[in-house]
Amino acid sequence: MARNTQVAADHNAPPITRLLAEFVATHPSRGWSDAVDHEAHRTFLNWLGCAVGAAQHESVDSALAAVQTLQPAPQAAVLGRAERVDVASAALLNGISSHTFDFDDTHLKTIIHPAGPVASALLALAELTGASGRTLIDALVLGIDVSCRIGNLMYPEHYDRGWHITGSTGMLGAAAGCARLLGLDAQKTAMALGIAASQPVGLREQFGTMTKPLHPGAAARAGLMSALMARHGFTASERALEAPRGLVQVVSTKAAWHEATDELGQRFEISFNTYKPFACGIVIHPAIDAAVQLRERGVRPEQIERIELKVHSLVLELTGKKEPKDGLQGKFSVYHGCAAGLLFGRAGEPEFDDAIVTRADVDALRRRIVATVDDSIDEAAVDMTVVLADGRREHVFVEHAIGSMQRPLSDAALEGKFHALSDGVLGAARTADLIRAGWSVGTSADLRALAALAQP
Amino acid sequence: MARNTQVAADHNAPPITRLLAEFVATHPSRGWSDAVDHEAHRTFLNWLGCAVGAAQHESVDSALAAVQTLQPAPQAAVLGRAERVDVASAALLNGISSHTFDFDDTHLKTIIHPAGPVASALLALAELTGASGRTLIDALVLGIDVSCRIGNLMYPEHYDRGWHITGSTGMLGAAAGCARLLGLDAQKTAMALGIAASQPVGLREQFGTMTKPLHPGAAARAGLMSALMARHGFTASERALEAPRGLVQVVSTKAAWHEATDELGQRFEISFNTYKPFACGIVIHPAIDAAVQLRERGVRPEQIERIELKVHSLVLELTGKKEPKDGLQGKFSVYHGCAAGLLFGRAGEPEFDDAIVTRADVDALRRRIVATVDDSIDEAAVDMTVVLADGRREHVFVEHAIGSMQRPLSDAALEGKFHALSDGVLGAARTADLIRAGWSVGTSADLRALAALAQP
Repeated sequence: MARNTQVAADHNAPPITRLLAEFVATHPSRGWSDAVDHEAHRTFLNWLGCAVGAAQHESVDSALAAVQTLQPAPQAAVLGRAERVDVASAALLNGISSHTFDFDDTHLKTIIHPAGPVASALLALAELTGASGRTLIDALVLGIDVSCRIGNLMYPEHYDRGWHITGSTGMLGAAAGCARLLGLDAQKTAMALGIAASQPVGLREQFGTMTKPLHPGAAARAGLMSALMARHGFTASERALEAPRGLVQVVSTKAAWHEATDELGQRFEISFNTYKPFACGIVIHPAIDAAVQLRERGVRPEQIERIELKVHSLVLELTGKKEPKDGLQGKFSVYHGCAAGLLFGRAGEPEFDDAIVTRADVDALRRRIVATVDDSIDEAAVDMTVVLADGRREHVFVEHAIGSMQRPLSDAALEGKFHALSDGVLGAARTADLIRAGWSVGTSADLRALAALAQP
Repeated sequence: MARNTQVAADHNAPPITRLLAEFVATHPSRGWSDAVDHEAHRTFLNWLGCAVGAAQHESVDSALAAVQTLQPAPQAAVLGRAERVDVASAALLNGISSHTFDFDDTHLKTIIHPAGPVASALLALAELTGASGRTLIDALVLGIDVSCRIGNLMYPEHYDRGWHITGSTGMLGAAAGCARLLGLDAQKTAMALGIAASQPVGLREQFGTMTKPLHPGAAARAGLMSALMARHGFTASERALEAPRGLVQVVSTKAAWHEATDELGQRFEISFNTYKPFACGIVIHPAIDAAVQLRERGVRPEQIERIELKVHSLVLELTGKKEPKDGLQGKFSVYHGCAAGLLFGRAGEPEFDDAIVTRADVDALRRRIVATVDDSIDEAAVDMTVVLADGRREHVFVEHAIGSMQRPLSDAALEGKFHALSDGVLGAARTADLIRAGWSVGTSADLRALAALAQP
């Protein structure tokens, strides 16, 4: 997992975020000399003159034309809510919500979550332009191909350096997808990629805060606006990705250029996309999978005397929390995942709710689990034996968990996951309609009906 | 000037921007297998379920509240134009226009152009909230302090790495300034800085394209939105700047932490701000300054037989273009700058117009200039002698050009520069009113009147 980064990390930096924030929030008004205050006026005046002076420049013309595309709000759906907002804000908000539960898709070669930036930009833009579903699916495949190929080219060094690769490649995928959806030619598509290249989003330090899901959202927004600006003549470097001071060399020490074009148009990176069946870290998935399998064989919690779990040491290192106190801790407990699988047959977001994690029967079942380390078992596998009250033993070995490349989530399981996420928001019947609309999106003449279905 | 970067640049990368753009623009619809197309539908469906499922999460609540601040457009002025747009778009557009002529302010210690990101965000936000001019000036001083201190901390390694430091620190200054203008407490200000930290903008590869001025504009927009989101409860890492995977360590190999807080509240970075008197590269400024001084002594172009210019070798290396063919080439010609200074007494944006650069009398004067290299002269200095038709010689030596820290642009000269930029857009009388409003901004009760003056 951990690799050496090329630059030694400094773990002892002073808390400058907090110190500067306190300074900005509390320093008294005009708490400086007259000379400083006069300089502030000179700074303001000089800025004002420069802005007025260039106001008729073509760069302002084309950026303004792009911004005016957003007028008047509201233009596009905030999925799962009643509100409608301008198309760029819809890309932002849907990008945030799609990654909020960390339950979205994963391109395992790069751990990019590819749909958030690309699909969020595309559906919003398609609502505005009336693009067909076929156009959206084409743009989705091509946009994801671009972001994942740039990811392949820089991974893992770029990620190790501290970039949240979903946001720092996602703006390229969103720009490419939106350029395709808008029907831009190759030259303008190159400009869209170039404009987007100056706007990578995302630090790994933000993991555990709302800014993590902001990354795909902001990338979606930036990519969409880049395509709109390119359409109206805004320019960027034609070598914004590959030049010595272009994106790749600025944010990565690895640049395997061939990844951009190897089998281009033959191998599509979306083929390597996977979908999490369980709303928690991937390392718990095999144990949950095993528990669900035992439940499906008829094992019932009240029959269980003991559960013996053999796992790789990494599993307990990362998720060895035996008595989780709330939902978030539950996501870092292989014991809780296992109990949820046996009790509920699933481990979606609801099974990591605080109320579930602290429920007495859940706690009691967790306590009957004995986990032992066995490094002969792969970290992606698990060996589970349930000892029943009558002395019977049920055994299951999971080599690759459901949701992996080897055992992809079935379409039916994907529908089940969708229902678990959406029924509480839209109701089961509306959710079923939305799922049908999703499966047939490639033949849909207009995506506005689908977007409307996704609003309560 | 050129320093070694820590990572060797690869100048032979393939043209992947263009190759990927061609692929995206020209690959046929559904030009892949059914399996790929089905995977695209699974990707779309999974994304849709995740977005709907998290739609009621507090992260979406707070981001939506921030976005709804933008509704309904139009809320703020596009300076120098008649249009009004939403507040975030106004920050973007005014940030672009203020940097379009590369004529804005310079914090010479870091070559940050500090006002673009900060002032563009602040004036737009102040129009919306009705903040006083005093509040704006306070926020401007503090916001610029934050971006320039983070710049001091990372410069020059961060810039050498390829980042356009104006945009990659500007979002912090804009976030800090907007947090101050909104009256956020220290905790929320830290969140604003944290949210902004994930959104650095700007590659040096973009120099020469419209995406260069996009950098301060996009930074203004990102900082403004970060403050609005923080106000509504959006969270980020409290160590987003300094953590091992925080902004500074991700985008810079230099991290002189003390620069963030040395003399904080005593030394203000805005004190080190400078304003270009001439609309071209800084290396030509001493020669233009000398030419203007000779003109002010009464030297008239028709009297001139020959101009002898002694300069540091770097000046001719960067700006040795003797026969510029258009305005852009004129900006890289010390000969043209010198001729403009003698003919017009200034070298603003109009003096670099194509029509001026190609004018016969301008060309004739340029041909009478003989420049020689003398490396005993500093690169910030010039030695100029004019030989007149009657045999007289006039000599001037400029040690520090007007506009440098040593010879700051006077307030009167700043007003002259403003008129040269604005008279053609707003007219001279309106411009004079706007200049008065700018000087008195610190005592203005409401900035809407000033913003209205800046619209034709």
